[in-house]
Amino acid sequence: MAEGVTPQNEDYSRWYTDVVQMADMADYAPVRGCMVIKPYGYALWENIHDALDRRFKDTGHVNAYFPLFIPMSFFEKEAEHVEGFSPELAVVTVGGGEKLEEPLAIRPTSETIIGHMYSQWIKSYRDLPVLINQWANVVRWEMRTRLFLRTTEFLWQEGHTAHATSEEAVEETLRMLDVYTDFAMNEAAIPVIPGRKSDSEKFAGAINSYTIEAMMGDKRALQSGTTHYMGQNFAKAFDIQYLDQNNELQNCWTTSWGLSTRMIGAIIMAHGDDKGLVLPPRLAPIQVVIVPIYKNDEERVPVMEAADSRFQQLKAAGIRVKLDDRTECTPGFKFNDWEMRGVPIRMEVGPKDVANQSVVLARRDIPGRDGKSFVSWADLETQISELLVTIQKAIFDKALAFREAHTYNVETIEELTKAVDDGFAMAWWCGSRECEAAIKAATKSTNRCIPMDQPGGSGKCIHCGAESTEKAIFGKAY
Amino acid sequence: MAEGVTPQNEDYSRWYTDVVQMADMADYAPVRGCMVIKPYGYALWENIHDALDRRFKDTGHVNAYFPLFIPMSFFEKEAEHVEGFSPELAVVTVGGGEKLEEPLAIRPTSETIIGHMYSQWIKSYRDLPVLINQWANVVRWEMRTRLFLRTTEFLWQEGHTAHATSEEAVEETLRMLDVYTDFAMNEAAIPVIPGRKSDSEKFAGAINSYTIEAMMGDKRALQSGTTHYMGQNFAKAFDIQYLDQNNELQNCWTTSWGLSTRMIGAIIMAHGDDKGLVLPPRLAPIQVVIVPIYKNDEERVPVMEAADSRFQQLKAAGIRVKLDDRTECTPGFKFNDWEMRGVPIRMEVGPKDVANQSVVLARRDIPGRDGKSFVSWADLETQISELLVTIQKAIFDKALAFREAHTYNVETIEELTKAVDDGFAMAWWCGSRECEAAIKAATKSTNRCIPMDQPGGSGKCIHCGAESTEKAIFGKAY
Repeated sequence: MAEGVTPQNEDYSRWYTDVVQMADMADYAPVRGCMVIKPYGYALWENIHDALDRRFKDTGHVNAYFPLFIPMSFFEKEAEHVEGFSPELAVVTVGGGEKLEEPLAIRPTSETIIGHMYSQWIKSYRDLPVLINQWANVVRWEMRTRLFLRTTEFLWQEGHTAHATSEEAVEETLRMLDVYTDFAMNEAAIPVIPGRKSDSEKFAGAINSYTIEAMMGDKRALQSGTTHYMGQNFAKAFDIQYLDQNNELQNCWTTSWGLSTRMIGAIIMAHGDDKGLVLPPRLAPIQVVIVPIYKNDEERVPVMEAADSRFQQLKAAGIRVKLDDRTECTPGFKFNDWEMRGVPIRMEVGPKDVANQSVVLARRDIPGRDGKSFVSWADLETQISELLVTIQKAIFDKALAFREAHTYNVETIEELTKAVDDGFAMAWWCGSRECEAAIKAATKSTNRCIPMDQPGGSGKCIHCGAESTEKAIFGKAY
Repeated sequence: MAEGVTPQNEDYSRWYTDVVQMADMADYAPVRGCMVIKPYGYALWENIHDALDRRFKDTGHVNAYFPLFIPMSFFEKEAEHVEGFSPELAVVTVGGGEKLEEPLAIRPTSETIIGHMYSQWIKSYRDLPVLINQWANVVRWEMRTRLFLRTTEFLWQEGHTAHATSEEAVEETLRMLDVYTDFAMNEAAIPVIPGRKSDSEKFAGAINSYTIEAMMGDKRALQSGTTHYMGQNFAKAFDIQYLDQNNELQNCWTTSWGLSTRMIGAIIMAHGDDKGLVLPPRLAPIQVVIVPIYKNDEERVPVMEAADSRFQQLKAAGIRVKLDDRTECTPGFKFNDWEMRGVPIRMEVGPKDVANQSVVLARRDIPGRDGKSFVSWADLETQISELLVTIQKAIFDKALAFREAHTYNVETIEELTKAVDDGFAMAWWCGSRECEAAIKAATKSTNRCIPMDQPGGSGKCIHCGAESTEKAIFGKAY
């Protein structure tokens, strides 16, 4: 890490791409708009995968795998869906050297092909609910791309469920919104706002879409996960029907929900600073890095021995630990390198520490002396486990305080315009598309969501003045 | 499960597709040659993934993710590679509604794009070795497809490594062959034969390919995993170079290795019988299924209570257990259903068992009374854990005995022709392409591999009679 990243306040966008590349998270691929997720970035995705997958299974879901290819005709079956996704499709026209009779789209999302299969699998009310998730790659032909945030191909999970009643489908949609919220808050340490999307921002083909909305370090919003209640739209388009207890044919009620590698971008921008990444301990590929410090061979032997013992000690305790035993670079270089990679705790082991049978722990989230502590070898696992919990909470609290400091209750369009330059604006909104469009045009911000957590009461719509019962959040968004 | 599967000896091929579908492993997709991996089949794949991924990480590998799309021009860079894969490519020609300047192939394997990235990442000997694996979907436009065994799209892992010396790359190739062998033997309970591929059977672009070769229930061979030593072929084609310790530019030595969802087909055909799947306990999604048996409400309450307690008891012990509490089907129906799905142990809980504080355990691999035992509730976890180990070994031993009973040492083409109708033929072979082709033409069998484990000594090539130092295995293959 010869040089640092562009400072955030100089150019946030450049800071972001600098960090992604210098922390070895991802690289540009030789195909337009595509990325390579490098091992360090992929290890973070594996931890995101595991934390989510556990939650999916705990809520009764199973995984399956559906084809990458979707016949073009499938998209035509749901009018809003085709309108939403057609412009973004990558299309296979040649297979095995021959032109295909029907071109195949690469899945941009799998409602259509999964709906087709469900129509064959679901016969009776006894087959319901169907609660399936898929981990997969998807492709959307994007014009402007950015590593993790918007790429032509990305990795995600997409849940697709079918239910006997509208109530159950709505319940599922909100349950998965809770799952995403819980994941974001407790694993990614990001204080997201769960909310409902406005009609103009919802998924193509949904009745209602829900989002977890996060504030990034530049005060812009990032939609970090979404769940959709489809009503019977896809059931009707794909004949997903079941015989009810009275032997009558009914349409199912379906949902879908997805969270993608974009979450990695959210983690980078929610917590990162001018030294690089700051990773939440629960998801960090490496939670503790041990840097041995010695001046000569005489010091090296006992230091390396102590460092290696600490490594074994922590590894046995289930802590994700790495011993940086590189001989070609200095401790100072290593400090910078691991700060760039956002490792929550750095452990320094020098000759004095060996003599004292202790180590120095330095927190990534608190620079300098304030973040340092001296801990004895004896109860190191316990101390580190507790410190990891402390850091997890600290970076969440920091992000929450930041968001709260940059969220404004506004009552006029002028206030809103000013507020969205410095964060989120909360405003009464009547719910009409017209007012939403007018606000967007006037302020260059978008309606991020109508938070599930509402203040209650009512007030005047910030645009038309009509009595409104819900507040919406407006902001500039990725 | 209203009806059974086609018996193996009536039509093995139909038996296979019946089992795949009736055991809910996979279904045909609405796209030619593609499959849907259903939840039960995918759960098996998840266990395969975990067992392999653990071994990859234990041998120093990390995961990453490379793009699905590969510029067509990349394939042209390695002559043998393009010849091998061009006929099988699916090609994207349209993106975002516009014709692409350069068509993009969907990856059939990723040597080329990963080679391109390695050429940018690898600068010095300090960067080596690079030991990366990828879990991904790949597409090969196949003419004749079969669920799991050969599908247009399939899931796999592909390892791609780069080394400073030929020795290290060869060592890696053989290490991963060992990893696959260990996985197949100890997790999938399949007694595979690790061996070297003949020149005509090796991977397009490799110097040497290695395989784990398994015998299926119809005595045919299934190539179940392969590792490839590329020499400097791809390094030269993609400029994967490094500065050595003398500051001189050198080409790397690379390897690749892959194992796919085809392994699921191997497990089905290595162990399955006319009642359906027989899954190895270590990979089975469900290791124990509890079937409660009662005639009336009076019996139901204590039986269900006992069944649920046993479920909790086993779950707490980390055993993958399911309680089949369906009320709409009979115990007999459930027995057949779980036999079809290959669950290693069925636990029956009836009123008498409740009275005795015991259960009946029935082994999937041993039908009838011989496979049954009565076990007290008290040490059920221990008994079941031991029984799972016993079953794992038993199905491995059975498959090994079957293979040994159908492997013949042959000395003439006539003997070989006869042998490959009933299994594997082991024969001295001089190593020439001409003899291999002649044997293939005469016997309709292929050279499966030259086993790593050789008898020693020498003998006359079965075709040309030249003195030969290696025996090869010939067989009819999938």
